[in-house]
Amino acid sequence: MAKIKLKKFLYGGDYNPDQWSEDVWEQDIEFMKYYNVNAVSMPIFSWAQLQPSEDKFTFEWLDRIIDKLYSNGIHVILATPTASQPAWLSKKYPDVLPVDIHGRKRKHGARQNYCPNSPNFKNAARRIVEQMAKRYKDHPAIIMWHISNEYGPYCYCENCAKAFREWLKERYKTLDELNKRWNTAFWGHTFYDWDEIEVPSYLNEEYEYMPGRQKSSFQGLSLDYKRFMSDSLLNLYKMEVEIIKKYMPDVPVTTNLMGPFKPLDYHKWAQYMDVVSWDNYPSIKDSPHSIAFKHDLMRGLKRDQSFILMEQTPSQTNWQWYNSAKRPGMIRLLSYHAIAHGADSVLYFQWRQSVGSCEKFHSAMVPHAGHLNTRVSKELKQIGDELLRLDEILESVNKSDVALLFDWENWWALEESMGFRNDISYLEHIDSYYKALYKLKTNVDVVDPTEDLSRYKLVVAPLLYLLDSNTAKNIEEYVKNGGIFITTFLSGLVDENDRVILGGYPGWFRKLLGIWIEEIDALFPDMKNAIILEKPLGTLDGRYECDFICDVIHSEGAKVLAYYEQDYYKGMPAILENTYGSGKSVYIGTRPEQKVIEGLIKYYADMAGVKPILPVPEGVEVTKRTKDGKEYIFLLNFNNYDVCIELPQEFYELITQKLFGGRVVLRAKEVMILRK
Amino acid sequence: MAKIKLKKFLYGGDYNPDQWSEDVWEQDIEFMKYYNVNAVSMPIFSWAQLQPSEDKFTFEWLDRIIDKLYSNGIHVILATPTASQPAWLSKKYPDVLPVDIHGRKRKHGARQNYCPNSPNFKNAARRIVEQMAKRYKDHPAIIMWHISNEYGPYCYCENCAKAFREWLKERYKTLDELNKRWNTAFWGHTFYDWDEIEVPSYLNEEYEYMPGRQKSSFQGLSLDYKRFMSDSLLNLYKMEVEIIKKYMPDVPVTTNLMGPFKPLDYHKWAQYMDVVSWDNYPSIKDSPHSIAFKHDLMRGLKRDQSFILMEQTPSQTNWQWYNSAKRPGMIRLLSYHAIAHGADSVLYFQWRQSVGSCEKFHSAMVPHAGHLNTRVSKELKQIGDELLRLDEILESVNKSDVALLFDWENWWALEESMGFRNDISYLEHIDSYYKALYKLKTNVDVVDPTEDLSRYKLVVAPLLYLLDSNTAKNIEEYVKNGGIFITTFLSGLVDENDRVILGGYPGWFRKLLGIWIEEIDALFPDMKNAIILEKPLGTLDGRYECDFICDVIHSEGAKVLAYYEQDYYKGMPAILENTYGSGKSVYIGTRPEQKVIEGLIKYYADMAGVKPILPVPEGVEVTKRTKDGKEYIFLLNFNNYDVCIELPQEFYELITQKLFGGRVVLRAKEVMILRK
Amino acid sequence: MAKIKLKKFLYGGDYNPDQWSEDVWEQDIEFMKYYNVNAVSMPIFSWAQLQPSEDKFTFEWLDRIIDKLYSNGIHVILATPTASQPAWLSKKYPDVLPVDIHGRKRKHGARQNYCPNSPNFKNAARRIVEQMAKRYKDHPAIIMWHISNEYGPYCYCENCAKAFREWLKERYKTLDELNKRWNTAFWGHTFYDWDEIEVPSYLNEEYEYMPGRQKSSFQGLSLDYKRFMSDSLLNLYKMEVEIIKKYMPDVPVTTNLMGPFKPLDYHKWAQYMDVVSWDNYPSIKDSPHSIAFKHDLMRGLKRDQSFILMEQTPSQTNWQWYNSAKRPGMIRLLSYHAIAHGADSVLYFQWRQSVGSCEKFHSAMVPHAGHLNTRVSKELKQIGDELLRLDEILESVNKSDVALLFDWENWWALEESMGFRNDISYLEHIDSYYKALYKLKTNVDVVDPTEDLSRYKLVVAPLLYLLDSNTAKNIEEYVKNGGIFITTFLSGLVDENDRVILGGYPGWFRKLLGIWIEEIDALFPDMKNAIILEKPLGTLDGRYECDFICDVIHSEGAKVLAYYEQDYYKGMPAILENTYGSGKSVYIGTRPEQKVIEGLIKYYADMAGVKPILPVPEGVEVTKRTKDGKEYIFLLNFNNYDVCIELPQEFYELITQKLFGGRVVLRAKEVMILRK
Repeated sequence: MAKIKLKKFLYGGDYNPDQWSEDVWEQDIEFMKYYNVNAVSMPIFSWAQLQPSEDKFTFEWLDRIIDKLYSNGIHVILATPTASQPAWLSKKYPDVLPVDIHGRKRKHGARQNYCPNSPNFKNAARRIVEQMAKRYKDHPAIIMWHISNEYGPYCYCENCAKAFREWLKERYKTLDELNKRWNTAFWGHTFYDWDEIEVPSYLNEEYEYMPGRQKSSFQGLSLDYKRFMSDSLLNLYKMEVEIIKKYMPDVPVTTNLMGPFKPLDYHKWAQYMDVVSWDNYPSIKDSPHSIAFKHDLMRGLKRDQSFILMEQTPSQTNWQWYNSAKRPGMIRLLSYHAIAHGADSVLYFQWRQSVGSCEKFHSAMVPHAGHLNTRVSKELKQIGDELLRLDEILESVNKSDVALLFDWENWWALEESMGFRNDISYLEHIDSYYKALYKLKTNVDVVDPTEDLSRYKLVVAPLLYLLDSNTAKNIEEYVKNGGIFITTFLSGLVDENDRVILGGYPGWFRKLLGIWIEEIDALFPDMKNAIILEKPLGTLDGRYECDFICDVIHSEGAKVLAYYEQDYYKGMPAILENTYGSGKSVYIGTRPEQKVIEGLIKYYADMAGVKPILPVPEGVEVTKRTKDGKEYIFLLNFNNYDVCIELPQEFYELITQKLFGGRVVLRAKEVMILRK
Repeated sequence: MAKIKLKKFLYGGDYNPDQWSEDVWEQDIEFMKYYNVNAVSMPIFSWAQLQPSEDKFTFEWLDRIIDKLYSNGIHVILATPTASQPAWLSKKYPDVLPVDIHGRKRKHGARQNYCPNSPNFKNAARRIVEQMAKRYKDHPAIIMWHISNEYGPYCYCENCAKAFREWLKERYKTLDELNKRWNTAFWGHTFYDWDEIEVPSYLNEEYEYMPGRQKSSFQGLSLDYKRFMSDSLLNLYKMEVEIIKKYMPDVPVTTNLMGPFKPLDYHKWAQYMDVVSWDNYPSIKDSPHSIAFKHDLMRGLKRDQSFILMEQTPSQTNWQWYNSAKRPGMIRLLSYHAIAHGADSVLYFQWRQSVGSCEKFHSAMVPHAGHLNTRVSKELKQIGDELLRLDEILESVNKSDVALLFDWENWWALEESMGFRNDISYLEHIDSYYKALYKLKTNVDVVDPTEDLSRYKLVVAPLLYLLDSNTAKNIEEYVKNGGIFITTFLSGLVDENDRVILGGYPGWFRKLLGIWIEEIDALFPDMKNAIILEKPLGTLDGRYECDFICDVIHSEGAKVLAYYEQDYYKGMPAILENTYGSGKSVYIGTRPEQKVIEGLIKYYADMAGVKPILPVPEGVEVTKRTKDGKEYIFLLNFNNYDVCIELPQEFYELITQKLFGGRVVLRAKEVMILRK
Repeated sequence: MAKIKLKKFLYGGDYNPDQWSEDVWEQDIEFMKYYNVNAVSMPIFSWAQLQPSEDKFTFEWLDRIIDKLYSNGIHVILATPTASQPAWLSKKYPDVLPVDIHGRKRKHGARQNYCPNSPNFKNAARRIVEQMAKRYKDHPAIIMWHISNEYGPYCYCENCAKAFREWLKERYKTLDELNKRWNTAFWGHTFYDWDEIEVPSYLNEEYEYMPGRQKSSFQGLSLDYKRFMSDSLLNLYKMEVEIIKKYMPDVPVTTNLMGPFKPLDYHKWAQYMDVVSWDNYPSIKDSPHSIAFKHDLMRGLKRDQSFILMEQTPSQTNWQWYNSAKRPGMIRLLSYHAIAHGADSVLYFQWRQSVGSCEKFHSAMVPHAGHLNTRVSKELKQIGDELLRLDEILESVNKSDVALLFDWENWWALEESMGFRNDISYLEHIDSYYKALYKLKTNVDVVDPTEDLSRYKLVVAPLLYLLDSNTAKNIEEYVKNGGIFITTFLSGLVDENDRVILGGYPGWFRKLLGIWIEEIDALFPDMKNAIILEKPLGTLDGRYECDFICDVIHSEGAKVLAYYEQDYYKGMPAILENTYGSGKSVYIGTRPEQKVIEGLIKYYADMAGVKPILPVPEGVEVTKRTKDGKEYIFLLNFNNYDVCIELPQEFYELITQKLFGGRVVLRAKEVMILRK
């Protein structure tokens, strides 16, 4: 796997020199040097500037700015400009433009506005990428490739339909197999010819059930279309990677991901990326643990490897409903937050705030004011200065004893299926359980359920509704060999085609969990029940409210930890623990209060021997990166007040370059990086 | 009118054997026998399984299962599979696919996804139905025909436009007449050629005024399009019936209706059905009276006849926002509820819970667990056993002294017209008045305003906005001959083309009611007024709040019962009673508190001599079915607690097969069927 | 500029005789005479009635009714019927029908349903208008022309795209200039051929960001499309005017505007109107100042000129969510309200309430009852009688010392741009500042920022986000020469292409205001801050809450009036005053409580020497019209109770035709017109 040759914390961001006259470039260089910028990403979105017509290329301006940057010590993350095709391409080749889920043929404009299965788009993309790779393959400025930008929307055109049928043939070989897997006998959907299969859209199978909540009438098809579309966009990415690798096999390639972005199965994507990079845009209302989750999810795409924070913003965005300025200290704290979770860079969107169009009020390293004598610029300068002291952390990794399982296909199926309740948000429940893990004050891995789990002491899998038999076996093996596994209602129910595992819920997990779920009751929003603990469990005791879903459970060997207080399943088990092989599995059959989730996770973490990295007060985050036997402990105070921390030994702190031990004060929004 | 030859309470449900391998059929038969199932509906949705290509039919599997069922004593409600055409048909004949209200040509998928005026759809439907009728005409298993399934969506394609123009020519003969009836002089809509008439959709006359509330700019056209679409779908139904009757004239034919389903004028449809059947899907939040209303509405489609409960679900559905499990005793109670209102069957959707696609979490008689050792299955078994004792009730009927008028065309016009307030829900007001009638503890008929009303002592017609002169005369005659008629604001205002009856509101009813309404004031949601009674009226006295609409009324002979407390119409009449012929008409010019509605209905019911079937406590429903001089009184305790009931005489109770008299305890969720 | 020859207050309304048989006309005339109606507008929407086919015209009915009216002393505001083309035209020439923002080709129906750049629509419109102008040019009944009706919706078809490209060529001459102005380097939007430019719609650049809030990804394009569409519709208007002026140069021409109607830049439109006319439809919930604002906005389109109230409704509308009846006295009070703000007419939609279609429940001068013995009709009669006494006011004008700046292009850019917060409503903030001016009890002009401002003592410009350099200079000159200018956050930021004025916010206004805004912070809805005054300012003192936006401001010479209480900009200036030339400019960098806005406006109005016309109690509105040295003071009591007013001298009151002086009682909903 190719690695970044520049052995420094990357500092810089997206740079769009083509939006400015060349005299502005001089000032850019001067400001970059002031900030200690050492890397910029470009020329994202510059396809039209680089290829004004089908047979004309104009790389000269790009040559000039790359040379100028490099001669000033600034490296380049070279981007392919394929996220926005030129207008002439859309005009000349109409197949380039996509069809949306309403069946509307789109017109040229915006960005990411192309069909991923358009032959002409692919040809044109291949051509511009090959031109770039050939031209810059020997340029010493180039330290990484950044493919396209924030891959995204699906297409529903006839070219996609054709490609989808080929994809299906590849997957299922015969229509008989497809008919069986999709349960097409339902509603007379049996197909007798591959050409009868239409893409699922608002013109047939899909509909907006509630605002923002899409449902499907035919999940087998809809789920495969999501897989296919994720693959179609991945194929574009892979097509570009292949060209680049021909010319620059040793330069790492990435594309900027977007955290929990539903349309693309990033677990699959990450296999084709040398390094994971992603764009982090919290609002000032986002809690630290929810941001931490995204970092861990992104890092978990490639375990045991650091990642690149490809974009964040110095202050406010333009596209959120309310774009508040980042409060003093927050951009620095969030930068260290990324590093604490495994980032080897602090990169921003964008370098210079644009003069027009929709992102003009998105903050940047150089504001509209045109100078750096601002609150935000001072903070950016401080970060740039401090990062120079952190190079020893580069490529260190976050090792975790605990893992949260997260799966894109499960996300798709869980939310698009119909039943029980139709307002289920996977992320909402993931958030509750991640928060409980986060509060253990230890590193958390967020990984795909297919990963080798043997390294973990505790594995948590909320609402793991869909999985295949291999994955079920993977989890079973983990427990059999001594692991502790916690899962919840709506888990283990269906196979990879969203077909129910017959014979009794929870399907794949029935034996592992030692239970049979007779019914899955959904509670209206105004309904509550409660669970009562059989006996104290760590910090938990007595009665706690629950709601949302209440499974009606029979133990088949599992020990009852808590039972329901009310309703017709009063006295029946709500939470159970099962001994399986050398391990334990725990089932939470309802949504209890958050403190129950946290109490249970703490109880089993203690049982598993999971220890906090350091015991720190509420609101202080602690993580650890490891490299060559050295440990780097990050303390981040997200509170608005100072806290005291008792250090168990003396540490060297990297930012202040001083030794600390005993009781130390960590000021509000302050950070310590302790080397052990 | 053909009758069901099987003289038993039908017990069973929708059966989809083609979704399962034949070895599962053996278990199905065994389980059916355990439950005492005697009838299953099939093969709904199996068109693609029965006709894999245009010239190939594969009825063999259906032969086998029908034979197997019959040889095990189970009869078949034979369904035509035309609710879901095969994919090859849509592919070969694009006219088969509909255009939606947005003007989007649909693609193949989902169900009920065809154009009702497509020549190719009609040809293909005729062909498969004829094949089936011919093949099974002599099979003794067949006890009823079930045409298609839940007829529904409208189409807006050019074939429909053409057919619409023909329908209009038939209705109006000349464009002059059409122009007059539609008031086309408004907004320059005058038509000079039939071809100028376009179907009303979101591309011209229709728009979504509020979420879920469609409005039209041109009601004459829009109203007729609804009539036409209801007729177009009815024509499909009639086309199938005609074929079947050719081969099996003595087997009753039905299609499963959906209660108050707005798109189709079921009063017209019922004329072509031997027996009414419908699908009842209450949520656990629905109140007993609102379910009772639907039964009475469906029974009212064919007065003096029992109906078929074609579908209900053993526990939860999949398609509601929150699909709670039915609480213990509820599926039994709801089954008896249907019977109490005139059903001769207890049928479920569906037999075996499906393994995949959107309905997989819809409950069924055989759950995913694959065995019957469940709470729900035990209740189903109990019902199946008990029904064996009820055959004497078959074909008994519910006779009523009171009627609620309900009209589909009125519903369409009331909600799609613009004015006064644009958030009017017909069903909401119907619910208030039905609830008041329901509380009389007597049978209630819900019937079309064109029915002969002479049998009733009390007729209630909330918001009867649209009617034609014959219907107005029908009501007038009823009152003239001694009836009591209660109506409300927004009644009598327009003719069948939504044209205002000029000369003073309430138009058709002005003379009958003895009032003139000078103004119809709409109150914002935060506005309230009150009515004050002139003198006590039954249980009512003094001041009550009102809101929504306040008519500004002048009596023209009517007696004032209550007047407004506030606003510029303070002191003016709000509720009036008029003597007309030998009867009385009552006008309620606003929306008072529910207790006023109930008090007024009770007052006039008493006046009319309407008696409760039995005096029973709150929360206990009582109805009566009659046959051959025998009366069957149903007592249903919807409370969560036991109640005492004083029986005025001794009765034989059918379920327990015991005699009861004097004070008896009716347990929570319990039922008695008393024969008198 | 042509003037209305009839020197009377116009009284009457929209008349649709073609919706009625001719025998009804007799009654119409009789009723009109009863009411003192002297003018009716027609034949709006009668195109199909006047031209049944391409080569046939049927003006005879129109001749008859015009003659009949005129012979009864009733004049005609002759309308062109082009708001609704005949169905045969749409059928024959499909280019007549528009394409909507979803890319859907519309079908015939509704109204205002044509493409403004359709060659065939233009040809046909020219033809019918020329026919009318020629036919009626010498008819003495005609006192004004009313072009089309409520011009409105945009089109997105290919004919519009072509015309748009021509419009752009005209505006920018070269693609280089356009690329620069639109900042097309952003997201690779560079155009190399005019034909590459697509209209912005939901198929590319536009999207619905929140319900009802449209956002654009590419403001340069989107803003110009709005200008172009406003111009396209204006061209239709001008095309008709040109034809009419050829035949009737001395008859004034207008079209009925709709107050703050976003799609059309009425400031540009007004240049082509002899007289401004508009349609006023307040709901009973609208506050007097918000209605007053609309009158002042419409009057401000042509300063120093009276306007025509072309439509209002006698009681309720049909199209609002809740259409309450106007309370007693309100239609009279609202009629005088219009006059108080500069109207020379009281005209209604409509004369006779229609019998069918969507406006049938819209109130009219002749109700469905068919007689005039109603509460509403009596009030209409009273108004008709009283207006006879007001002719001396005709053509008098409202002169103001204070002005509010309002600009359509600013509105478009402010709401469609992305950033800070995306829920900004221009009208909401305009309302706050207008209300403060309104409470000064003086006339208020609402004018375009390009107007000569030298006549004003005080000019207020909330959220004046977009302006060009000339406009910025206009305002600067005004202050330099002694004016007082008050503006707010989000002002001065961008040029006419929505490009940021670089070098420090607030861009154009930085020097004028003597401030630099380092940051623009957006507060979530649950966030609050407060401002604290440096020292008392008129009635203001101490601490007041603020929210929404908080600018982080540095004074560059301006005096700090108030500073922030909290957050990281605690103690920094929130409100500042700057002396510039002989004038003062005031900057309000946040949204304070309404009383602060009112206190500040009052403080600076006092400083500027702005005096109330008369000191009157809360809830009483006072305005003044002036003509030939005479002043007419209007007192309108919007309270529900009587008030005492101290008159400083004796006045002649026009309605009662009496003298009043000293303490007088103005009854609830009552009006006085005092001549000085």
